[in-house]
Amino acid sequence: MKYSSTSVALIQQHSEQTYENNIKKALHLIKKAVSEGGRIVCLPELFLSDYFCKAYDEQHFDLAEPVPGPTVKTIQEAAKVYEAVILCSIFEKDGPLHYNTLAVIDADGSYLGKYRKMHIPDDPGFYEKYYFTPGDLGYKVFSTRYGRVGTLICWDQWFPEAARITAMKGADILVYPTAIAALEEETDQQQKEYHKAWRTIQQSHAIANGCYVASVNRVGVEDGMKFWGGSFVADPMGNVTAEAGSEEEVLLCDCDWNRNEQVRREWPFFRDRRIDSYQALTGRWTADDLQQPY
Amino acid sequence: MKYSSTSVALIQQHSEQTYENNIKKALHLIKKAVSEGGRIVCLPELFLSDYFCKAYDEQHFDLAEPVPGPTVKTIQEAAKVYEAVILCSIFEKDGPLHYNTLAVIDADGSYLGKYRKMHIPDDPGFYEKYYFTPGDLGYKVFSTRYGRVGTLICWDQWFPEAARITAMKGADILVYPTAIAALEEETDQQQKEYHKAWRTIQQSHAIANGCYVASVNRVGVEDGMKFWGGSFVADPMGNVTAEAGSEEEVLLCDCDWNRNEQVRREWPFFRDRRIDSYQALTGRWTADDLQQPY
Repeated sequence: MKYSSTSVALIQQHSEQTYENNIKKALHLIKKAVSEGGRIVCLPELFLSDYFCKAYDEQHFDLAEPVPGPTVKTIQEAAKVYEAVILCSIFEKDGPLHYNTLAVIDADGSYLGKYRKMHIPDDPGFYEKYYFTPGDLGYKVFSTRYGRVGTLICWDQWFPEAARITAMKGADILVYPTAIAALEEETDQQQKEYHKAWRTIQQSHAIANGCYVASVNRVGVEDGMKFWGGSFVADPMGNVTAEAGSEEEVLLCDCDWNRNEQVRREWPFFRDRRIDSYQALTGRWTADDLQQPY
Repeated sequence: MKYSSTSVALIQQHSEQTYENNIKKALHLIKKAVSEGGRIVCLPELFLSDYFCKAYDEQHFDLAEPVPGPTVKTIQEAAKVYEAVILCSIFEKDGPLHYNTLAVIDADGSYLGKYRKMHIPDDPGFYEKYYFTPGDLGYKVFSTRYGRVGTLICWDQWFPEAARITAMKGADILVYPTAIAALEEETDQQQKEYHKAWRTIQQSHAIANGCYVASVNRVGVEDGMKFWGGSFVADPMGNVTAEAGSEEEVLLCDCDWNRNEQVRREWPFFRDRRIDSYQALTGRWTADDLQQPY
């Protein structure tokens, strides 16, 4: 059975430090989301612990687990009981390798597969390249009971390439579990600009691709990092149709997949892509004589 | 001599119907722009005539001219006198072919080259595929006296691929001469949404690429098409730093090219592009078993 519209629920939660506390809260909020009508339920990035990438610490690798594995099993049970699609971010261990992974569970509790974060950041406070091997599974769309979900994670959101390729695989909605924070050393103006840019670029993926975009961030202050929340859904015209504040919250948003088709008729960008001219996108930087002009 | 900052002037003009009137007004507004400090002066798309693509009419091909040709010569003279870089949109004739072209003139009056619009729209009121052969010169950046100018045109603005490739060629600023209008049959809400989406996606090119973006639209009502103006400049963080209303106007904006370098240090997206995974961008649409799910 297929649905042409559904309710997406974004679980904007803050970390309670331990795995036990975080999974317990997540299950509680999933139940709440479903009771309010949520059908595709998305948890934020790495919600099972504090955001550990803020420091280099070998012990943090102990947090990783296989996917599928214990957490997937727990989420599968919830998905089956609640008949909800659940997107669950997990720090994945695979032999000697570790990935920033998103597991997708269908509304009958079946495990559909996983996406491994392709773009890995590495900036002050976000030392992810130490922890995560860059994703090796490519871009993914999962046909779930309630819609075709394109899976992307946090830093991926700054790359139009990732959104485009995922949309071209048939996604009704691009979902970005996220852990983005303001740092203490940033000025108020920087924090506002960063938040605004973060929102704008994701709206642009909706516009460029004529599909829904959802982003679910964590909240709370951890060691001076202020996770700003602001989870939101943008419709295929880029309108923000639901947006959370900076507190813990279950954000619901009705999505009508037929809107994508309608918008793509009004703006037929896919028709006009100059695919004969895009080869340079597989290169790094092509300016040659222009390196240091100033 | 190279400049690390400059003033960009966007000439938001409405058509006076005839070539003579329009070139005269353009020259007058170029003079005004320069007198107010403008150094890189951009004219809107196809400003030398009414927006003729609103109808199928073979006679309109008479409007085309070679590039370089008479208009380039006139603009070269102005550029030399005013020591301004001038970006001049021209309906180009090249043998049996016609292009939507942007000529770039340096501040010493020299002709640096041209860009031919790569993405051609074709929607009710915008029958551009009838008039224009899709560009065959690829994406372009011109090293002018006052900065490295990436040239794109109108419909190109909806394609993150075009912005990315042009930025990777070393552009300090992406400039989009534009002719975008609201149609009479559109609701107020549609008109607002379209304008907002148009602004948002161009802001996103600035963010994704860490460079300035400028868009210069025409104004005025022509045969029920209301060209909405709203020319603007976005800085490399996506902030709109100057924005015009819906009347004829010369919009000036100071741009600091060193800002690009600064923002690219804060957000090193170019470092993290997964160029090994972007091959699919040279394809059309890759969903296979997902064609008609609803």
